[in-house]
Parts: sequence; C-alpha cells; structure tokens
Amino acid sequence: MSDVICMDWRREARTGVAEAVFCPGKTPDQINRIVHLASRNSQRLLFTRMEDQTFGCLDAGVRALLDYDPLSRTAILGGPPQRTASKLAAVVCAGTSDTPIALEACRTLAFNHIDAPLFGDVGVAGLWRLLDRIDEIASYPVIIAIAGMEGALFSVLAGAVPGLVIAVPSSIGYGVAQGGITALHSALASCAPGVVVVNIDNGFGAACAALKALRWRMPMPDAARQDASG
Amino acid sequence: MSDVICMDWRREARTGVAEAVFCPGKTPDQINRIVHLASRNSQRLLFTRMEDQTFGCLDAGVRALLDYDPLSRTAILGGPPQRTASKLAAVVCAGTSDTPIALEACRTLAFNHIDAPLFGDVGVAGLWRLLDRIDEIASYPVIIAIAGMEGALFSVLAGAVPGLVIAVPSSIGYGVAQGGITALHSALASCAPGVVVVNIDNGFGAACAALKALRWRMPMPDAARQDASG
Amino acid sequence: MSDVICMDWRREARTGVAEAVFCPGKTPDQINRIVHLASRNSQRLLFTRMEDQTFGCLDAGVRALLDYDPLSRTAILGGPPQRTASKLAAVVCAGTSDTPIALEACRTLAFNHIDAPLFGDVGVAGLWRLLDRIDEIASYPVIIAIAGMEGALFSVLAGAVPGLVIAVPSSIGYGVAQGGITALHSALASCAPGVVVVNIDNGFGAACAALKALRWRMPMPDAARQDASG
Amino acid sequence: MSDVICMDWRREARTGVAEAVFCPGKTPDQINRIVHLASRNSQRLLFTRMEDQTFGCLDAGVRALLDYDPLSRTAILGGPPQRTASKLAAVVCAGTSDTPIALEACRTLAFNHIDAPLFGDVGVAGLWRLLDRIDEIASYPVIIAIAGMEGALFSVLAGAVPGLVIAVPSSIGYGVAQGGITALHSALASCAPGVVVVNIDNGFGAACAALKALRWRMPMPDAARQDASG
Amino acid sequence: MSDVICMDWRREARTGVAEAVFCPGKTPDQINRIVHLASRNSQRLLFTRMEDQTFGCLDAGVRALLDYDPLSRTAILGGPPQRTASKLAAVVCAGTSDTPIALEACRTLAFNHIDAPLFGDVGVAGLWRLLDRIDEIASYPVIIAIAGMEGALFSVLAGAVPGLVIAVPSSIGYGVAQGGITALHSALASCAPGVVVVNIDNGFGAACAALKALRWRMPMPDAARQDASG
Amino acid sequence: MSDVICMDWRREARTGVAEAVFCPGKTPDQINRIVHLASRNSQRLLFTRMEDQTFGCLDAGVRALLDYDPLSRTAILGGPPQRTASKLAAVVCAGTSDTPIALEACRTLAFNHIDAPLFGDVGVAGLWRLLDRIDEIASYPVIIAIAGMEGALFSVLAGAVPGLVIAVPSSIGYGVAQGGITALHSALASCAPGVVVVNIDNGFGAACAALKALRWRMPMPDAARQDASG
Amino acid sequence: MSDVICMDWRREARTGVAEAVFCPGKTPDQINRIVHLASRNSQRLLFTRMEDQTFGCLDAGVRALLDYDPLSRTAILGGPPQRTASKLAAVVCAGTSDTPIALEACRTLAFNHIDAPLFGDVGVAGLWRLLDRIDEIASYPVIIAIAGMEGALFSVLAGAVPGLVIAVPSSIGYGVAQGGITALHSALASCAPGVVVVNIDNGFGAACAALKALRWRMPMPDAARQDASG
Amino acid sequence: MSDVICMDWRREARTGVAEAVFCPGKTPDQINRIVHLASRNSQRLLFTRMEDQTFGCLDAGVRALLDYDPLSRTAILGGPPQRTASKLAAVVCAGTSDTPIALEACRTLAFNHIDAPLFGDVGVAGLWRLLDRIDEIASYPVIIAIAGMEGALFSVLAGAVPGLVIAVPSSIGYGVAQGGITALHSALASCAPGVVVVNIDNGFGAACAALKALRWRMPMPDAARQDASG
Repeated sequence: MSDVICMDWRREARTGVAEAVFCPGKTPDQINRIVHLASRNSQRLLFTRMEDQTFGCLDAGVRALLDYDPLSRTAILGGPPQRTASKLAAVVCAGTSDTPIALEACRTLAFNHIDAPLFGDVGVAGLWRLLDRIDEIASYPVIIAIAGMEGALFSVLAGAVPGLVIAVPSSIGYGVAQGGITALHSALASCAPGVVVVNIDNGFGAACAALKALRWRMPMPDAARQDASG
Repeated sequence: MSDVICMDWRREARTGVAEAVFCPGKTPDQINRIVHLASRNSQRLLFTRMEDQTFGCLDAGVRALLDYDPLSRTAILGGPPQRTASKLAAVVCAGTSDTPIALEACRTLAFNHIDAPLFGDVGVAGLWRLLDRIDEIASYPVIIAIAGMEGALFSVLAGAVPGLVIAVPSSIGYGVAQGGITALHSALASCAPGVVVVNIDNGFGAACAALKALRWRMPMPDAARQDASG
Repeated sequence: MSDVICMDWRREARTGVAEAVFCPGKTPDQINRIVHLASRNSQRLLFTRMEDQTFGCLDAGVRALLDYDPLSRTAILGGPPQRTASKLAAVVCAGTSDTPIALEACRTLAFNHIDAPLFGDVGVAGLWRLLDRIDEIASYPVIIAIAGMEGALFSVLAGAVPGLVIAVPSSIGYGVAQGGITALHSALASCAPGVVVVNIDNGFGAACAALKALRWRMPMPDAARQDASG
Repeated sequence: MSDVICMDWRREARTGVAEAVFCPGKTPDQINRIVHLASRNSQRLLFTRMEDQTFGCLDAGVRALLDYDPLSRTAILGGPPQRTASKLAAVVCAGTSDTPIALEACRTLAFNHIDAPLFGDVGVAGLWRLLDRIDEIASYPVIIAIAGMEGALFSVLAGAVPGLVIAVPSSIGYGVAQGGITALHSALASCAPGVVVVNIDNGFGAACAALKALRWRMPMPDAARQDASG
Repeated sequence: MSDVICMDWRREARTGVAEAVFCPGKTPDQINRIVHLASRNSQRLLFTRMEDQTFGCLDAGVRALLDYDPLSRTAILGGPPQRTASKLAAVVCAGTSDTPIALEACRTLAFNHIDAPLFGDVGVAGLWRLLDRIDEIASYPVIIAIAGMEGALFSVLAGAVPGLVIAVPSSIGYGVAQGGITALHSALASCAPGVVVVNIDNGFGAACAALKALRWRMPMPDAARQDASG
Repeated sequence: MSDVICMDWRREARTGVAEAVFCPGKTPDQINRIVHLASRNSQRLLFTRMEDQTFGCLDAGVRALLDYDPLSRTAILGGPPQRTASKLAAVVCAGTSDTPIALEACRTLAFNHIDAPLFGDVGVAGLWRLLDRIDEIASYPVIIAIAGMEGALFSVLAGAVPGLVIAVPSSIGYGVAQGGITALHSALASCAPGVVVVNIDNGFGAACAALKALRWRMPMPDAARQDASG
Repeated sequence: MSDVICMDWRREARTGVAEAVFCPGKTPDQINRIVHLASRNSQRLLFTRMEDQTFGCLDAGVRALLDYDPLSRTAILGGPPQRTASKLAAVVCAGTSDTPIALEACRTLAFNHIDAPLFGDVGVAGLWRLLDRIDEIASYPVIIAIAGMEGALFSVLAGAVPGLVIAVPSSIGYGVAQGGITALHSALASCAPGVVVVNIDNGFGAACAALKALRWRMPMPDAARQDASG
Repeated sequence: MSDVICMDWRREARTGVAEAVFCPGKTPDQINRIVHLASRNSQRLLFTRMEDQTFGCLDAGVRALLDYDPLSRTAILGGPPQRTASKLAAVVCAGTSDTPIALEACRTLAFNHIDAPLFGDVGVAGLWRLLDRIDEIASYPVIIAIAGMEGALFSVLAGAVPGLVIAVPSSIGYGVAQGGITALHSALASCAPGVVVVNIDNGFGAACAALKALRWRMPMPDAARQDASG
C-alpha cells in the first residue's frame, strides 16, 4: 500500500503554492509516514483540517515536529518562515463564528511568507462597524472576506475597495442558509463586479488564490525563484 | 362552467385586503365575466399579472372600465380611491430592472388608499446611493424592498431602519441567481433580524402584507370598518 | 482576539430591535465576556439558541445573572421588563412539537415589552380546533404562526384574519418535509395574499418582525424614544 | 419502424385500466396508425395531452373517428360508454386555472364508465367556499383534489371527509411554487393522514387510481369481467 | 402548558381513520398524559415512530397499558380489535431492509380491523421471485408496495394487478438514492398508470389510505357507523 | 478566429472512438470549415445533434457530402463503413418517444462498424412485451437501454441478461420526471448490480461506451489497428 | 419472518454476476441465517458494506467461515477462487482517501476470478503522476476510475486510453462536493465520450459492470458456463 | 421616473473597475438616456449582454456613438483606450462554443487597457492540445479559463501554472450539465488549490477580477490614479 502516497514536491515551483496535506480520510499512520517523508526531504509542509483527535493519535516524535493550532485545525512542519511580507493581504470576517476559517487562511498565508491582519465582527447588520475600518481595509491589494448566512458582506466590501476580494462562504447559519450554499450563491451573484469565490469554508483555498495573485509582488523564496526560472 | 368562478367579496372585511384577480391561466372570457360580475355588485377590483395581449383580447366595453398599466401589468376597476394616506409605506429597489415589481406594489397600495414613493437604483454596489437617502427611508413604518441577484440590499437596509422591511426577491440575474432563489434565500437568512419575505417577484403580496401591518394606522374606508365591527 | 467581539448597543434606537446574541459557534468564554461587557454598560441582553450544555459551561457568576429557559433555549440578562403591552401579538402553532419555537418567539416578545398568548395544537387536520378559536385570534394585529410538514395552517389562517400573519416554517416532519423547506415554500406560495415569512425555526426573527410592525403602537421605552428622536 | 408500436390490449383485464396513449413525442403519423390499429381491433381508446396542433395534423378520416376536447386535451375513440355509474367519484379544484387538469380527470373517468361532478374554485383562502359544499363532497368514496401553489386544500379536505383523497398537484404558480413541486411536497407531507398523491398535472393518473380503488364497487363491463375471471 | 394537547376523538367518524399520535418531538411526559386522557375516555389509540428509549422513559403504569412493538416502532392502547377482515389488503416489499416500514403498515391495518399478509423480498433484480407470487398478490383490492433504491417494483407491480397500488418509497440506499427521493420520484413518474404515492417511509399513511379506499367494503365498527350517519 | 477549431484526428487510435462533432453552439460557417478540413484530410466524421435548420444553413457543397438523418439529428461524412459486425450490441427502448435517442445510438454504432438491432416499445407497464423478447436480447454482449419517466426498464433488464447494460435515461416525461433526472437516478440506484449509466439523452455516448467495451472483440479497421500498435 | 429472505442462487448463470449481500439494514441474525443457507447449498457468497461492529456481532461459527476485510468492508464465504485472470481490469484512484472504495472493487473482482492492480494517488492536480503511468493503464480493456471532489480524473483518463472507463464518483470532499454529487455529474457530463458511471462510492457495482463487459473474454467457471448454455 | 437611473461615476477610482451597464431588463429608452448622460459627462462606458435586437432599437445617434460587437454582446462608448498593457492576462477556453464568453472577457479587458490573447479549443478530452501550449499560458500572471460540461480544464490548468486561475463555468452542455451548475461546482471543488470562480457565463466579472488582481502592476490611467490618491 505504500505506493498510494505520492507527494508532489515540485508543486510550489510549478504553481506558486506549496504541496499541502488535506487530512480527512487519512489514517494517523499515513500522516506519520508523510511527515517522515517530508523530513527526510527537508520539505516544509502544511496540514489542513487536522482534528484534535487525529493530532493526538500521531506518534510522539511526529507531534514534536509539528506546530499544531487546534482552532484553525492546521499543523506546520518545518518551523516559521524566515522572511515575511506585510500590507499585501487582509482577512475580514462577518461574525465571531467565522474565526476558525479566518485563522486557516491566516496560517496558510503565514506558512507562505505573508503576514495578514484579521478584521473581525464587521457584519453588515451594523454597517458602522465596517465603515469605521473601511479605509484601512481598502489599502490592501488582496482581501479575503468570510461570511455565512446571506453573505451580504461580500457585495458591500467589493463595492468599496479597489483590491481583489476573494469570498469564502462559511457554513454558519441554519434553515435556508443550507450549510453555506446561500452565502456561496450570494457571492457568485454579487451585484458588485469582480468578486471571486472559493468553496464553502475553504480558508486554505482562498489563501492559495491570494498567493497566486500576489506572486509577482511578494519577496519570493530564492529556491522557488530559481526553480521557476530554471 | 359558470360555477367555477366564485368571488370572495367579503375578503376585505375579513382579512384587511380586498379580493384581487391573478390573471395567468384565465381566459379573456373569464376575465370579461369577472369584470361584469364586479360592476353589477359595485365592487372595485384589482387585476394582477395581466399581460398586454390579454388586455387586448378583452371586450371593448370591459377595457373601457379598466385603468390598465402595462409596466406593472395591473388593471384597476372602479376608479381611483377617494382618500389616500401618505408617509406610511415606501418602496425601495436595488436596480432599474426591478421597476415593474416596484410599480405592482405601488399600484396595489394606491388601490388600497396608500400613496407610497419609490426610491430606485440604490443597490449596495455603490453604497453612497443608499446612504444618501437612508434618513428619509428610515422615516417610514413599512418599507417594501426589492432586489435580485444576491439581495444584499435587504440586510443593509434592515440594519439601518426601525420600520418593518418586507423583502421581495426579484428574478433579475442569471446563473446561480436561479430566477430569484438566491435573493430569496439571502433575504430569509439575513443577519439583520426582523426581515420578512414574500415570494419571488410578488410585489402584490408585499403590498398586501404592508396593508395588514398598517391596517390599524390608516384611515379605513367606512364600509370596511362597519363590516369588520359588524 | 478580544477585538472580534463588537457589540452594537445602538441597534435598538436605530432598528427598533435590541441587540441579541446568537450562541451557536460561540465559546463559553466568549459568552462570559459578552455578559460582563453588557453588565458593565447596564445593557439588557437576549441570548438565543443557548443549549443546556453551553449554559452549564458558563461561569457561576454569569449563570446567576441570567434568566435561562431550556425549552426555548433563551437566556435573558437584566431582569423582566417593567411595562408590558398585551393584545398586540399572538403566537399560534400547529402541533405540540412546534412548542420550542413558539416559546422562543414569546420570550423575545416579552423581553421587548410585549405579552403574547400561545394558541397551541390547532393544525388543520382537525379544522374545528382552529375554527373554535379563530375569533379570538382575529382580534390581534400581528399573529406569529408556526407550522411544519406542509404548512397548510398559514393559508387557512391568513384567509381568516385581518392582522399581519408572520409564518415561521418549522423543521418538524420527515421525507419530503425536508427539514422545513416544504413548509417554507408553502408559506411563500400561499394562495392567501399578505403572508410574510421568516427562516425555518426562526421564532426570534418572527418576534423581531412583529416588534417592527408594532413599534408605532406599543408603549416605547423612554430611552429608546429619546434615542430615536435624537 | 412499424415494430416500435406495440399496443397492450389486455391491460384493462389485467390492471383494471384500459390502455391509453400519451401523445407528446409521437408523430401524427404514429397516432394515425394507432387509431387504425385500434379500429381494426374494435378497441375503444383514450388519447391524453393531445395538443390542438397535433389534432389538426391528423388525417381527416382519423379526426372524424375521434371525440376531441381541446380544453382537457383528450380524444376518445369509440364513442361514449353505454353504462355510467355516478356518486362514486368527485373532482374538486382550488382555482379556475386548475380546470384543464380537472377535465382530464373527468373525461378519463367518463371513458371508463364513471360520471364525476366538478366542484370548482374552492381554495382555502376563502374557506367558506369549501365549507359550504363539504357535506356534499364528503358523500363520495373517492375524491380527486387538484391544487397548485401551496396545496393547502389537500390537508383541509382530507381532514374533513371519509373518502380516499387523491391529490393532483398542479403547476399553477410562480417563484417557489416551482412548477408544482411545492404543491406536490405539500400533499406528500400532509398532516392529515391518508392523502395519496400522483405526479404534477396528472389528472389522467388520478382518474386511473380512482378506477382501481372503485373497481369492486362499480358496474364492470361484461367483457372485462369475463376476461378477469377467465 | 396543558392546553397544547388537543385530541381529535371525532376523527374516525369524520375521516374514516382514528386519531393517532406521531411521537417524535413529544416528551415522555406528554405521551403519559395522552395515554391517561385516552384511557379516561375509553379510546383506543395508535402511537407511531415510538423509539425504544422513548418507550423506556414512560411511566411503568403507562407501559403496562401499551402493546409495544420495537421493530415497527408502534404502540397500541386498548388491546386487539375484535373483528378482523382479511383478503382486503396485502403488503409487498422489495427487500429485507424494508421490513420495519412494512410492519408499521401491517400494525396500522390490524389496529383498524384489517389483517394483511406480508410478501417480502420480491425485488425486481430477480423477477422470478415476484412472478412466482403475482397471482396471489393480484387477488387483493388494495396493495401497499414498499421499495427503496430505484423503486422499479412499483411499475412492474402496477402493470400486473387490478388493485390499487399504494407506493411507499423507503429511505434504503445511498448516493443518488438520496434518502428515498429517487424511489419517490420513480413512483410518481411511473409508466404504469394509477400508482398513488405517500411520503418516504410512511407505512402508517399508506395504511390510512388503504382504510379510506376500503371503508365501504369492510365491516365497519358499529359506533363509527352510527357516528358517520348521525 | 480560425485557431479556435482544433480537430483531434488521433482520437480513434488513442481512445478507440473516432472524433465527432457536437453541433449545438457552432455556427454553420464553423461546421462548413470543419467538413472541408476533414475532407482535405480524408477523415470520416460524425456530427451529432444537428438540427434541421442547421443542416439547411450549410453550404450546398457541404450538404452534398453529408448523409443526414433528421430523426436522429446525425450527419455522416465519408460514406458507409465497409465491414460491419453484428450480434455484438442491441438497442432496447421503453417507449415510442425514445426512438430518436435510440437511432442516435444505432447510427453512431453503424459509423463505427457495428450493426445493432432496435427492440422498441418494451416498457415494463406491460411486462409480457419484454419477456416475449428477452431470450433474444440476452444473447448480446452489450445492450444499450433507453427509458424515460421512472426508468424501471433498466433494473428489470439488468436482472435478466448476462451482457453489459448501458442505461441512457431519456428526458421523456413531465413533473417529477424532471427532464430525465428521475430516470438517471433510477438507473444509478438500480437494485440490479452492474448497470452503467451515461448522461440524459446521450445515445452517442452510450454507443461510444459500447465500442470501448467491444473493442477487443470486433473486426478493427486496419488503419486504427496499425496506429494503436505503432 | 423466515420467508423475507429469498436468495437468488441462479443469478450468476442468468446475469454473469453472482448473488451478493448488501449488509446495511440487515440484522446480525439475518446475516447468520444467510451464511448457513449458503453453506448448506455449497454457494460462495460476497458480503458488502459490512461494518466492523456488524462482523463482531455475528456468531463465532459464522465469523470463522468468512474472510473479512475491514478496510473494504467486504466478507467472502467459500474461500479464494481457483483460477484468476489478470491484465483484464485495472483500478485507478485519484487520492489516498479513495482507497476503501478501490479495495471494494478489487475484492469483488477477485471473488469473481479477476486479479486487478491498483494505481493510487494519480489525481490531476499533479498531472505528471498520471502521465508517468498512463501507458501501463492504457493496456487494460477495462479501467475502474475512482475520484471525489470535481472528478476531473475521469475525463483526462478517458481521453487517453482505449479501454472502457467505468467512473465511480466518491463522496470525498466538502461544501459543493455535496457528498459525491459533483463528481457524479462531472463524470456524466464528461467531454470525453464513452465514460460510463455507477452510483457514488459504488466500487462493488463498478466491478460487476467490469465483469459483464469482460464475460466473453475471461475464463468462465465451468459450472456457470454449463448453466448459461443449459 | 428619471430618478431610477443613478450612475456611479466614482466606481473606478473607488474599486478599480469602471461603471458598466448590464442591459437585460432595461428598455431602449433607458439605454439611450444612459448614453446621453455619459456623453455629457465625458465618461467612457461599457455595456454588457446587449442583444442584437436591443442595439437595433436604440436611437440612430446613440448607435453611432457605440462600438458594438454582436458575438460578445458588448458595446463600448468613448472609443478605444489609449495605452494598453500586454502579457498580463490570457483567456483560455475549452471548446468552440465558449467563444462568446471568452470575447466578453477580452473586450472588458481591452476597455480597461489590457490586451489579452485567446487560447481556444484546448479541452482535456485531447490533452495534447493543452500541453502543446501550456508553457506559453504559464507565463501570464492571470488566466481566465472558460469551460462548460464537467469543467475538468480548471483543475488541469491550475495544477500546471503559477498564475491566478479565474474559472468561468459556461452553460454549454445538456442533461446533468444543468446550464453550467456542474462546471461551477467542479471549479469550486477543484483538487488543485487556488482556483477562484465567478458566476456561470460571467466573462465580464472574470475580467473585472483580473483587473483588480492586476491593478498594482498595470499602467493606471492618470485620472484614476489621482482620484484614488485624492
């Protein structure tokens, strides 16, 4: 069975985003083996959607190698990045309950050398909360916006800022919120042109898209730069 | 077949909203007979969703009795109301394309003695258009709001005014707008509490709800008042 | 992380409905902090969808400040309201299983100074149960109606009373009842004009809409009145 | 290609309902051939959903053999039935627009020897219209009920009569009525036990079900009786 | 809170089917009270969807009054019926997994004086299993058919028997079986005319429909007969 | 714009199925150019879903090169195939209305050197029609089955024959038939194991699958054989 | 109740696929009885979707007769097959999480005398992983492909190989992946002609289809051969 | 009615994308007035989804002012842009039928000073067509990809290039392609991280998003630059 794991170490050079591991459906044993494989290759690695209990079932030696954050359910192998760019991306979320997704985006950005601030609890039911902070948000070239329920934040924000708004519909809500489908459709049908959208609760994907949009502006790691030009 | 038309003349006294006739699926002959029936009973009557071609197929004598408006697709039998209340309800719509639905609501209100102004083209993609007029809108106890696409207007509006916001999702849009379903779900899942919703494109229904909410405030026609207390 | 909580204390003056806290997705620690924040500001506060286990995890001091009701899953901070209006709103529900939603509506109304009676078990399968009480129900200007399954109650009720009927589809049922979607669509497509609808199981939202519809009729708290005119 | 038509002349003996021809998707030439085939076999035959233009395209000789009714879109080959039973089935419909479906049911019953009256325009928005006639309706062992929009008629009716209620959801309505899906789900999720349902707009199918339910009560044609016992 | 239970003891006389109690959403205390209420009125009563744990939480005295069957999740108050009719209804099911729904139908029929046999495991993947027994099945005037997955049994059966086929789609299956939706739509779109359908897993409802279809044929309880004629 | 047409002439050698042209969305001018391109390369070519009016708009010289069949909406460039295999595939359809799809499958097979007979009008409502012919059908290694409405034919057939059953759900039907979705889901959820399915109305795709399944059995055209081994 | 189990021992001779037992919804007692029944008839038997806990609840004597594999959730009665064909079918899967479904397919093939290799972790996000192995995969006449999320693997694979591609959409993914529906629709709407599809997660069904497609190529067991010709 | 048009001339400075006019639902008279309004303000303006017949109904003087392109259904007021950047964005589409959407994107980019090449007919059914051109495509920082049916192009492309991939699902296809929903969900559930998505057929929105992503790289018009900094 060992052949069913086939890591794509060349992904960052090829696509601008490093290989990451989506944990659901993988056994602790498989994750242990992936960590060892990456360590032997001196590869940094990001794990997403790693639940508390999964982390607890990993080998002690593997756990010691990982920087695990339970709220965002992410783990990082290989320590913090050395150079970090700021003022490139901001993360904005409508309600307190969207925090885990926001943090998944922030951690993914940090793993890829971008330091992004979080603007929380700015839902449009009390529009002054957003308007008070809109000038600062508008100064970022890329803005990851997270909202559940009806997702009205996406349109209001995109109508007010010049940067790229990447909408992450969240599964917060009940009834017709339908686990994020209404926020998703709301983002896609936005009356403000230029909103782009990723899958429900996909903070990781939004951060990857931000990286791709910012690739030509940010300080690229030397290795990747060589690989890309080679 | 004459027995399949059975008008409910007591509806206004019983429910606060006069009997109205939904035209789709009715033949011109049936509409002619309904007009004659109402005329003989000295009943005023509102027809909704009457298309141009349907109106054109009615008897000339019947057409002469009706005040027909092609944009809102409504026809009124019995002439304008004698007393009209203002400052009770406003109609707000997000885009130019929502105008026909807005006018259906305005005409239904006018038929029922309420004069409602129309605030058009205030979609949230350019929020200043709404904010410029929000104080005036906020002075109405009932506000009918019409929006298609993602329906973000409903939440922004409801978070800013004290009156009852009746949302009418419109079928404007394409793709995931799904003929109004996304705007509908957006209104129902609104993060601003207290939004109430009617069916897609149902300007008539929104006006009826406004009438029921305002019934105790408006100058009631004497006949209806007697009937209700009788 | 403290900045991700941003209370909207001006909401009641602005929108006619006081700020409330939707508990799902919030940690006990966040709720503890919200209670302390409100206490320091002498603000009354309503918590909705607070499950038994969440309440049990709050600090003892916080629990002592709250009036918690497990059936409606609501908690009230700040004691009972001083003045209460009656004969303004009624709550009607089709079956015994709809009681928790009905009580959420009643508690929300009570928190906002309105005393609303509950008319239970009046589903249309035995129409005499509703007809026996219809005259009393018809005397209220606003009626919150709760029904699951096929939601036939909404149309029968709206065809019989002059007040505003606010329909709350409930998630009671199985199979094609689809967790409340059928009752929701039934309410929206009602043949009785003027029914307005809120999200599935949203007793709180229905009560907020009732408050907005009744705002000009009820004895307004002095502070809010000043704020609104200020 | 002649082999792709294969009539099932034994169907009535086997299933209690005679073979019928669903016209959509069939060419005029195929229908001509079916009529000739039936004539040669001295078989009576019912055609459903035959549009005006299809009938107009048939051979003149074939048209002369058919009793065509454009409103119900049915055609009957072989003349009126000789014996007809009454007081066995009634057809009830909510609105004027449901008439074509109601007539499809009535014609199908008539073709099969049952004379069924039509109770029209008894929708529940004005409940008195139904209550005025409920005692007469309740005297029938089988009741075919037709309603679109929210289909509340099905539950009210089934809660009031002892006979079998066969619900036919109609495609009347717009928005969330979804071409009859809401009425369909409403009928299936009815709080009144014992409602059975057929496909949207399927007046023919409802009549067939009525025939099967009444088979042991009605005067059976002699031929069929012999076939069944043979 | 005692007023939210309102039993409909006149239902059997009015509709041909006795009042029954749907247990989900009801507390053990409410069920205890309903049993006492029925006992005091000497009413027999059927409880459906009563889970093991709910039965276990009832008062010991109440449990002693009930004939509880865990497989069909039904409980009967008032003992077995005195007269029972046979050869009126049969229950047919496609697979072993449909047995609980089949038994719910059988118990409901037995409670209402009809003794119905069960024909099991006759799915169409091995058609000979159905064909071996089709002559016996065809001798019943009403046949309740239960099938999940694609529900092909309904069409094959209805094309082969003269009785009324009442289809109960079951939630057996996975993927596109969608909890019974595919079997439901399959039954409604059947190419065999005259199939009628009830909600997914609704063995109780199918039995009620059977009772209504058979009401004029079966030995009616004397009391009900008087009530109906009175 | 000429670069937006890029034919895949190597497809047959690579995948076992020759390049074909799906006409919807292509202008007559584009189709003219494709025909000329293929002629210059001495390539045979199949066009699918070519409507009458599209064919009529092609250049006269192009029309002369094509063998056009309006019922199946297919056109063939390059004349009939020289060698044809029989007894490999059969096409079975439930009703007369499924004929156009059946013929699309037959023509696609013929274009690819397979002669397939059509078994029509064998729907399961009259099961004897299928049982009379089942032995002959069972002798084919691949069977393309076409059915709309509830698609019960797929399960009955697959439970009776040893060959591969490729189900083509057709869009025949109305209401819950939902343009073929119910037949599609019925095929996928079939209780008879081994049914495989293609998109709704996709007679072409079913024939392609048949070709791939039969590739190792049929007399391969010499050119393709060389290409594949080369 | 013993009559509700009715095994179809003749299925292999009739359809090319041996009877198998789908375990969900069956009690341990029923499974025990099925094993004893098969043993007494000297029938080999495959059980699918047998969960760990179900296996654990079987009688010890029954457990000893079964070859149980927890990862694929299959159990085999009757020992390994004597002759096995290779180079007939391959199983390809996009990600590590699809392994259980892949193994269900492999075990079903092995039970039916076919030895199929597994090509794992070849998802198209890193296309080189698939291209590196495509020539080997292309040498198989039947390829079972398993993918979740967006299912792009199906089209890329089918455009590159001559064999029959049987797509198994898997339920891996979240949000709009909708439990496999997106991968399912992706497979059905594939731009590469000839892809055939089975239900979500249905590795067993895909293997059965492979068996039917390969029936005329593989070494058939002698008994089945006789039965089929007899 | 003139107040229902309210242009947002400050939108470009505020959001990076100039005001554009969505034509569906607007009357020719309204479009005439908008053109005059823009002309008087010396504003350039883009009109989208303007059908042939709408353009034909405009005033001759207005038509003369517009650069209209019927294939992309766009019209431009104010002449070509003076400075144009190249090598910033590419447009890639899967099939010939996607051309109109591709051209809408190209024209929107051109209107906003970006010259983008079109790579057509590179669908993954013949992967070599994409692989032949992938190096050139990979050199662009932003790639707009258009595909209908199953949308497999999005994942393959995003796994191979470092730029931002903006997916536009197109409504090309039939059956389960569902007017673009399957391609939409496929893009959102892509296994290749970082794909972002806009509404079905929304070439205009994709171009707007590209503009926002490229805003800091491209030569900004002087006026806009001043406005933004002012």
